[in-house]
Amino acid sequence: MKFYTSTTEIPEEMLKGVELTHTHLSYLSETGILYDNTLDNKAVPIISGGGSGHEPAHIGYVGAGMLAAAVTGPLFVPPRAKNILKAIRQVNSGKGVFVIIKNFEADLKEFKKAIEEARTEGIDVRYIVSHDDISVNTYNFHKRHRGVAGTILLHKVLGAFAKEGASIDEIEQLALSLSPEIYTLGVALAPVNFPHHRTSFLLAEDEVSFGVGIHGEPGYRIEKFEGSERIAVELVNKLKAEINWQKKANKNYILLVNGLGSTTLMELYHFQYDVMRLLELEGLSIKFCKVGNLMTSCDMSGISLTLCSVKDPKWLDYLNAPTGAFAW
Amino acid sequence: MKFYTSTTEIPEEMLKGVELTHTHLSYLSETGILYDNTLDNKAVPIISGGGSGHEPAHIGYVGAGMLAAAVTGPLFVPPRAKNILKAIRQVNSGKGVFVIIKNFEADLKEFKKAIEEARTEGIDVRYIVSHDDISVNTYNFHKRHRGVAGTILLHKVLGAFAKEGASIDEIEQLALSLSPEIYTLGVALAPVNFPHHRTSFLLAEDEVSFGVGIHGEPGYRIEKFEGSERIAVELVNKLKAEINWQKKANKNYILLVNGLGSTTLMELYHFQYDVMRLLELEGLSIKFCKVGNLMTSCDMSGISLTLCSVKDPKWLDYLNAPTGAFAW
Repeated sequence: MKFYTSTTEIPEEMLKGVELTHTHLSYLSETGILYDNTLDNKAVPIISGGGSGHEPAHIGYVGAGMLAAAVTGPLFVPPRAKNILKAIRQVNSGKGVFVIIKNFEADLKEFKKAIEEARTEGIDVRYIVSHDDISVNTYNFHKRHRGVAGTILLHKVLGAFAKEGASIDEIEQLALSLSPEIYTLGVALAPVNFPHHRTSFLLAEDEVSFGVGIHGEPGYRIEKFEGSERIAVELVNKLKAEINWQKKANKNYILLVNGLGSTTLMELYHFQYDVMRLLELEGLSIKFCKVGNLMTSCDMSGISLTLCSVKDPKWLDYLNAPTGAFAW
Repeated sequence: MKFYTSTTEIPEEMLKGVELTHTHLSYLSETGILYDNTLDNKAVPIISGGGSGHEPAHIGYVGAGMLAAAVTGPLFVPPRAKNILKAIRQVNSGKGVFVIIKNFEADLKEFKKAIEEARTEGIDVRYIVSHDDISVNTYNFHKRHRGVAGTILLHKVLGAFAKEGASIDEIEQLALSLSPEIYTLGVALAPVNFPHHRTSFLLAEDEVSFGVGIHGEPGYRIEKFEGSERIAVELVNKLKAEINWQKKANKNYILLVNGLGSTTLMELYHFQYDVMRLLELEGLSIKFCKVGNLMTSCDMSGISLTLCSVKDPKWLDYLNAPTGAFAW
């Protein structure tokens, strides 16, 4: 059993619970919108959002130096355009509003509708579509390019840049420069197990699925589980093939090890150790890393690995800058 | 399957993974000791520790303004006295060393042995035994008084006090004043599910167990699950009976909602909402609260609720003071 049972509604109790816990966050009832009530209107506001079930994303990244607001929908269902529009209006102070969207068809539909409407109201809205997932579709072998855990690098870097006083044009340019450098690949040890949630794939106790999504989407290959190191080798090799770091002069990288839900910190840090050893052998230098449950898929057991080349050393300053967000 | 498989050894890979991730932490190989390498010797050092499987406790609480070091043992097995002694020596700078011990027989045995040895070496070691658990033993109905999630309030308050320049005598006095005010009660929705770990109780899919420990110890009553609110009522009522807040003038409290492992943030904040509404009806004023996986029991599904009366408003300042620890 679970303390929360998924429905087709916005999870009001969770969002009110967050509001009652974190004094810098205010909740607009029945909209899914949590916003930073300490906004000083000096920075261009950045918003993001998506279905619930990915906590701490995105509510945990609202705060000074990251997001101005997050819009949350029902479990694994994106927020409605009308609520995204409300969020844009809520944070707008005339400098424009920047929106970070995860690349899923349903999300794009709602966000684009809201953005178009806001623009007709005269708000200068720009956006980036995060598409860090490099897994392939088993049916047609096309890359899936979904927006997954690497998205939070956009939240942090752009949020700190905005706080520094960057214009909407500058934020857009940085987003276009940073987003294509972010690569993520996930693996599940067990699927989502939530009441009233239809499990989209099944795994035997000793199997793992490579390339899963964050809504329980199946991966590209099921294998026998042979330990943390074997999984680290698979993920690092796939990322290497994609990024081609051996052919690049810049060996400085940002690393995220993300738990997909019920994977313990003990496991995440064990896996992190395996990954760091492999990356050292590859000659990469990890200049910033983060380990934890950053963008989950309810209680799925699994991990995703994100790598991002440090094209500009200022990105590291933005990652290390202080923030009021509770989950960074 | 899990990325980590429990053994009778110290989880070296996890601890090295933590060291590779957090630059302020250094690991002493094969000892279980992670210490804060930014220690400036101005503050009396505070250490804690216990078996592994409770992450982020205690490694996540090492950093300026909290612990100077944490000693970690094998899964659910306390560290050996010789390693606790090494940790005491490591952080000692002549001002004395303060130790926070969770009240479990096996932990007390090892910690007391190390403290006695350190004292014969001339180190002024003081300690507090954390015993916040108010569940009762089903066999003899005695209170169990185990040291559970509320222990981290000691880490934070004493750590910030030490950083302010408090002497070992003053730290001991504050510990003796704070510790008896902390009350915790836990509930499991599913037991620990870790390879090679013997599950100590079983629950049907629709059952919950009240009063469980953090090593998979069974609780005092098994009931049908009837939702988050029903569980909140049970825990709040038990805490009320113990604390007797209706008879006290001071209505200011500190609150922790702690996930025991695989419980999602969505569930924790949902539960937090239910608890906050009940406490408001009770006339309590929550001056500080924290929600998250603070002290876990591997991947157990469940929650513990901690309440602590604010006897001294300075405690809130210490809770709100900045810290270098990664999990606070």
